[in-house]
This record gives sequence, structure tokens and C-alpha cells, in this order.
Amino acid sequence: MPKTKSDGTAQPVASNLKIVLVAPRNPLNIGAAARAMSNFGFFDMRLVNAYELAFREAKSAVKSQGVLKDAREYPTLAEAVADCALVVGTTSIGPRVLDHPLRRLEYGGKLIVRKMASAPVALLFGSEKFGLSNEDMSHCHWLMRIPTREGHGSMNLGQAVAVCLYEIARNPAAVKIPPESKTTASADDMERFTEYLETVLAHSGYVHARMAGSTRMKIRRLIRRMNLNTHDAGVWLGMLRQILWKLEH
Amino acid sequence: MPKTKSDGTAQPVASNLKIVLVAPRNPLNIGAAARAMSNFGFFDMRLVNAYELAFREAKSAVKSQGVLKDAREYPTLAEAVADCALVVGTTSIGPRVLDHPLRRLEYGGKLIVRKMASAPVALLFGSEKFGLSNEDMSHCHWLMRIPTREGHGSMNLGQAVAVCLYEIARNPAAVKIPPESKTTASADDMERFTEYLETVLAHSGYVHARMAGSTRMKIRRLIRRMNLNTHDAGVWLGMLRQILWKLEH
Repeated sequence: MPKTKSDGTAQPVASNLKIVLVAPRNPLNIGAAARAMSNFGFFDMRLVNAYELAFREAKSAVKSQGVLKDAREYPTLAEAVADCALVVGTTSIGPRVLDHPLRRLEYGGKLIVRKMASAPVALLFGSEKFGLSNEDMSHCHWLMRIPTREGHGSMNLGQAVAVCLYEIARNPAAVKIPPESKTTASADDMERFTEYLETVLAHSGYVHARMAGSTRMKIRRLIRRMNLNTHDAGVWLGMLRQILWKLEH
Repeated sequence: MPKTKSDGTAQPVASNLKIVLVAPRNPLNIGAAARAMSNFGFFDMRLVNAYELAFREAKSAVKSQGVLKDAREYPTLAEAVADCALVVGTTSIGPRVLDHPLRRLEYGGKLIVRKMASAPVALLFGSEKFGLSNEDMSHCHWLMRIPTREGHGSMNLGQAVAVCLYEIARNPAAVKIPPESKTTASADDMERFTEYLETVLAHSGYVHARMAGSTRMKIRRLIRRMNLNTHDAGVWLGMLRQILWKLEH
């Protein structure tokens, strides 16, 4: 995987991705696909041979109104993908019975992203029951498979769309982005914490005078392992101060 | 991203991942989550404070019977995650209002995979309407966010589960796996193809004697660009042979 600017190619253009649902039957699935598109910033949905009723019901349902409102219907797959320079079909079938090259999503997604930088790409999803037909697949340059397990390969349509779009929207560089977090407590904070805790433990009889030296080191290490941020170190100091006050009075 | 054996750590153990749905309401979503788990090879589902009716309805529905049949119910989140060494909450909320470190899925997924090699990990999903509560989040070591767009961050529960599990099951090395494809046609096949096509074009008057040399080179390059496999080269030769026969009779 390229570590820098993905081998110098231009950025993918989100509007270049066309999600094509072929013969979808269930309005909930059409709606779920539209919602996932909106979640990941893709807005061009195309429907081929959709059940009229399913499409109407989906349109009247919640969320991602934008995607569904603008979705276009086509009588044939050829017309739906006419403007696309790359046509990719999704399938859960193993490679043995296919006449097409079959790529895993991790690899295929990268090729799609690359192509999206310069030209429209169609990503096809078949009907819930039968997937894409051989006729549908003959319009594809290649096929793509989500790496599901062999015993249960077939995914729900809305979930399959979500997973594919996530892979396409996924930022490989983000694997290395550390979490946003508060500032780590300073060594000074840690040392004050150590002293307070030691005093509290001495007052409560946990520390014996004879063992004081080794206990202090143990406590110091214990506190460093907490990986405290500035805020939490302050909270701890406040609690210890209060405990100490109570112990002394 | 490590190119070889993911920095020498052991393989993740699928059974170490516990998917915890907190207060889910919709049986369809519980079913969809279970189906995605089965698709990606995770089988330990836990439900906290689920609507009894929703759970029962989900159980009686289709697919991934295994996951739902074995799903366990817990009265509190503390009990549901008691055996886990890492507890991660999912959220669609931005980092500003959270008291926890927030990691993107690309990065968080890697940490989860690493931990799964040695200890049980809980991945929490909140209710469809409200997500995880502050109380729920206080049980988490950190939070994780699917990189959805700002204008529409909240995902459908079943789709969110599918996307997270895909990232965890995803094989970074597969980004480089070339597609399974048939053997590329040999130079010999290509040359026979070139000759046949040239003969056909000569017979049909496309090639003028004067231009024959440059046309042959154009055709040779044209055919190389087709990237044919052995099988397709054979089909082409058969078609050309038949056309030639027709032209000669």
C-alpha cells in the first residue's frame, strides 16, 4: 500500500461513482442502500428494472431523501451504464463458475478509486434473491467479491452496499492516525501524584518506614503506567488531597 | 501498514470478538447484525436491555440462526463485558463533546485485531435512536467512529455492524492480490490472430496492398492491447476462420 499520495494519481471524484441496483425488490433495501450512499458521500443512484412499487415505497420512506429523490430509473442495464468507463459487478459466488476475473474488495476497491479520478465508474448490485444474472455480468469489466466466509457468503443488499462504499471511502493513511486525546500529564504532575499517594499510604499505615524506598519506586512505576492526561491527573490530586485532609483530622 | 506478518503479533482469534448490542429496538436490525456477524465469521452476540419482543421476533426470522440462537442477554452492560480486556464503543458523534479518545475505524480496527490475538474484546453498538449513553461509554476504554461524512454521520445499526466487522476481517495484504484469471494468450496465439485478421481484412477490401506493411503493425498492436486469455484468443480465431470461409466462397 502506498504510504504517501497513492502513487501520484489524482484524487477520486465522488460524483464519478454510480451505484446501480439491478432488479431490487425490497423497498427497505433500496432505502438502506441510499442511506449508506449518503453516509459515505455518494449521491448517484441508478435503478434498472426495479419493481415500481418497491421504488415508490422506498422514496416515501425516511432519510437520504436526496439520494432517492435524484435516483434515476433505466429500462436496461446497458443504458444505465452507458456513460461509464469501468463497470464492476458484485457477487458472492466463488471464482470457479465465473467467466470473469474476480477481485477481492480490498484490491478491487483500490482500482475503482483510481479510475474514479478520471472517469465515471458503475458499481452493480443484483437482486436480493438471485444476484446479478450472467447477462448482467456480461456488461462488466470484472467482478468483485466481499471477503465473506465460505459457509455464508451472501450478504444483505443494504449491508453489501455499505461495506463496498466504506472500502471506497476508506482512507488507508488513517490507519496511522493517532486518536484525538487530551494532553498527557507532565512528569511534574506524575511526581506530585506519587508524593501525595505515598503520604496518604504512610498516614493509613500501608507503607512501613523500612520499606519506604522500594514502595516509592513501585508507586512511581504504577502511576506512570496509568498514562494519565493532565485533566485526570488533576482529578486524582484533588481526591488524594481530600483523603489526606480527612486522615489528618 | 506492515507489509509482512503484521509486526510479528499472533493471529486474531475470531471467537475473542464479542458484539454487544445495547438496548436495540428493531428486530430487523438485530437480525441484520447477526447476519453480518455470520458473513464475517463472528458468532458471539450479546444483548443488553433488549426489548424482549424485538429479540424474540429477530430469533424467529431468517438466516444466521446460529448467531441469534446462541446470543445471550444481560441485564447490565457491566455484566455483558465482564470477561473482556478491551471495551470499545461505537459512535457517530464528533470528538468535541466526548470525554473519551476517539479513533477512526481504520485505526481502531487495527488495535482491536491486535488485542483479539490474546484476549476477549467487546465492541458496543447503541440503540438505533440514541446510540450509546454517557453511562454506557463510561465502560469503554475508547470510542470508535466510522468515517461517514459530517452532514450525515449516523448509520443504520445493521450496516454499522457490517462495516466494522468488514474492517476487522479485512486483509490488508489482499490489497495486492491480483485477480484470479485465465492464462494470458501466448505470443504465438496473438500472431495467428493477427494473420487471420489481416487476411480477412484483405479479402474484404479494408487493406490496400500499398498500405499492407503499416496496417499489419497497427493490427498487431491493436490485438496486443486486447490482453486476451488463451480461451478468448481461441474464440476469436474460430470466428475469423468462419468469416474467412464465407468470404472465400
